[in-house]
Amino acid sequence: MTEYSIGVDLGGTNLRAAAVSREGKMLGKIAGRSELQAGRDAVLLDIVSAIKRLIEQNSDRKLVGVGMGVPGFIRFEEGIVVGSNNLPDFEDFPIRDELERLLGEKLILENDANAAALGEKWIGAGRDVDDLVMLTLGTGIGGGIISHGKILRGYLGMAGEIGHITVMADGNPCGCGNRGCLEKHASATAIVAMAKLLHLGDGITSEGVYKLAIEGNERALMIFTAVGEALGIALAGLVNIFNYPLYLLSGGPLPAWDLFAPHMMHEVQKRSYTFREAKTRIEKAALGNEAGLYGAAFLPFQAQEDAKH
Amino acid sequence: MTEYSIGVDLGGTNLRAAAVSREGKMLGKIAGRSELQAGRDAVLLDIVSAIKRLIEQNSDRKLVGVGMGVPGFIRFEEGIVVGSNNLPDFEDFPIRDELERLLGEKLILENDANAAALGEKWIGAGRDVDDLVMLTLGTGIGGGIISHGKILRGYLGMAGEIGHITVMADGNPCGCGNRGCLEKHASATAIVAMAKLLHLGDGITSEGVYKLAIEGNERALMIFTAVGEALGIALAGLVNIFNYPLYLLSGGPLPAWDLFAPHMMHEVQKRSYTFREAKTRIEKAALGNEAGLYGAAFLPFQAQEDAKH
Repeated sequence: MTEYSIGVDLGGTNLRAAAVSREGKMLGKIAGRSELQAGRDAVLLDIVSAIKRLIEQNSDRKLVGVGMGVPGFIRFEEGIVVGSNNLPDFEDFPIRDELERLLGEKLILENDANAAALGEKWIGAGRDVDDLVMLTLGTGIGGGIISHGKILRGYLGMAGEIGHITVMADGNPCGCGNRGCLEKHASATAIVAMAKLLHLGDGITSEGVYKLAIEGNERALMIFTAVGEALGIALAGLVNIFNYPLYLLSGGPLPAWDLFAPHMMHEVQKRSYTFREAKTRIEKAALGNEAGLYGAAFLPFQAQEDAKH
Repeated sequence: MTEYSIGVDLGGTNLRAAAVSREGKMLGKIAGRSELQAGRDAVLLDIVSAIKRLIEQNSDRKLVGVGMGVPGFIRFEEGIVVGSNNLPDFEDFPIRDELERLLGEKLILENDANAAALGEKWIGAGRDVDDLVMLTLGTGIGGGIISHGKILRGYLGMAGEIGHITVMADGNPCGCGNRGCLEKHASATAIVAMAKLLHLGDGITSEGVYKLAIEGNERALMIFTAVGEALGIALAGLVNIFNYPLYLLSGGPLPAWDLFAPHMMHEVQKRSYTFREAKTRIEKAALGNEAGLYGAAFLPFQAQEDAKH
């Protein structure tokens, strides 16, 4: 009987689940919205129902386990999520134990950005390396670090907060208390904020700024220069710290790669001796917004391997 | 027959070697100067002679191996040192193989700052944790990262270059090509440079600046404020990236801890949500300039353990 696992990605907006084979082939996927306004119990039942449907669809296969990526910090031992702005109802709630009880299956929790990095390592742009750092550019900037093939969690599951690295000591203020956080200078939200400062139009989105830039709008181009420089400062630091072979970028602003990446690479080249000396790849991630789903599905396979050793 | 190992610390100024028991007790130590001007062969013979004396002194014990810390990047597989400003004669030279041939013993090379971090983890301020980051403040700023009890090397032995993290995007220029590197704002050299900018006297040393500061000199105090802030920005980033339980500082400016640490801690507190949420210690290292010697001596014991698994 061939084995498979189930990955779940619970976000502030979307709830998705997928059955994935040991070889990384997606066997089935269920995508819907996270009905957070309906309350915690409703969301839990949606998760359980999606997983149960996938189990039914794969009744000829053996389920290894369920992995779930969620925004926030994961207290791995307790199986809880803390500090999640997107899932306030689940703060300090025993979500892992409750889902295991409802499902009768083992479930592994992980931070969503960490899961995405693991997914890329498993079957995405990082499948040929054991060590990588991934940045996901969105409303904020999430980070995941893979060390020796595994997620670097830190002692309370809070590692990889790359969006809050300081890139400008006196830069834009951040809700985390810092100033000049990477995500205040290079996220989709930062792109929109800079567009407002440059009077590029009320209600403009980061896609709108991108469109203006490819039409040659000088101010829109300046924004992507600034985004590239901020990313370059952060990446140069990460290259100096880790000397890993691969750094991946993912997320909404990725189509604008050709606009920001030259400035980013220029900064890294200038700011990191290590980058100049050690062949280091800075590339686009490959799995798009399914990276987290694959990474979550990989968690039970990895736990099974670990248990053997 | 009890076992011991030998640690060697080859710096630009000093050459030291010590025999250390498995329990971390120093059994004997030889300290001298690195006579680099006498040429590479003379230095190699000095190293061999020191090690052989220690072996003679411990003839009733069994030698597990020799570890050696050197400034520069270690190409672990090849056993060579590259990019070392302090040891230009050894650039790309097969130092490990040559010493093994002269000694008839196994030798493990490591970067000196990495060795110091490992020493602190073994029997110093980090002996109760498995993960830590250590900064050594000196002429430059060296860094060592211990992950799951082992040195995080990166794929070409270049990880841990914490002295070259950008703390000010447009800060002081650095020989590495970057601007605003931590070591250009917080090393002993940076302290002296700031003292010059503040006209605190020609030829003043970092110790001299410290003396002025404890006498209440306002400008000298400003320097330690700036040092603390730069360290705080870098440490906040490291805490956000690693979420490790312990960060250690070592080196010459450590006596000035009470002058710079309050500013450092203030910055970390302000800039790192992770620091505020997760109990994180930022402390003085315990072994002083012997940390690297102990760390180097621990390398053969660790390799022996690894070989068992």
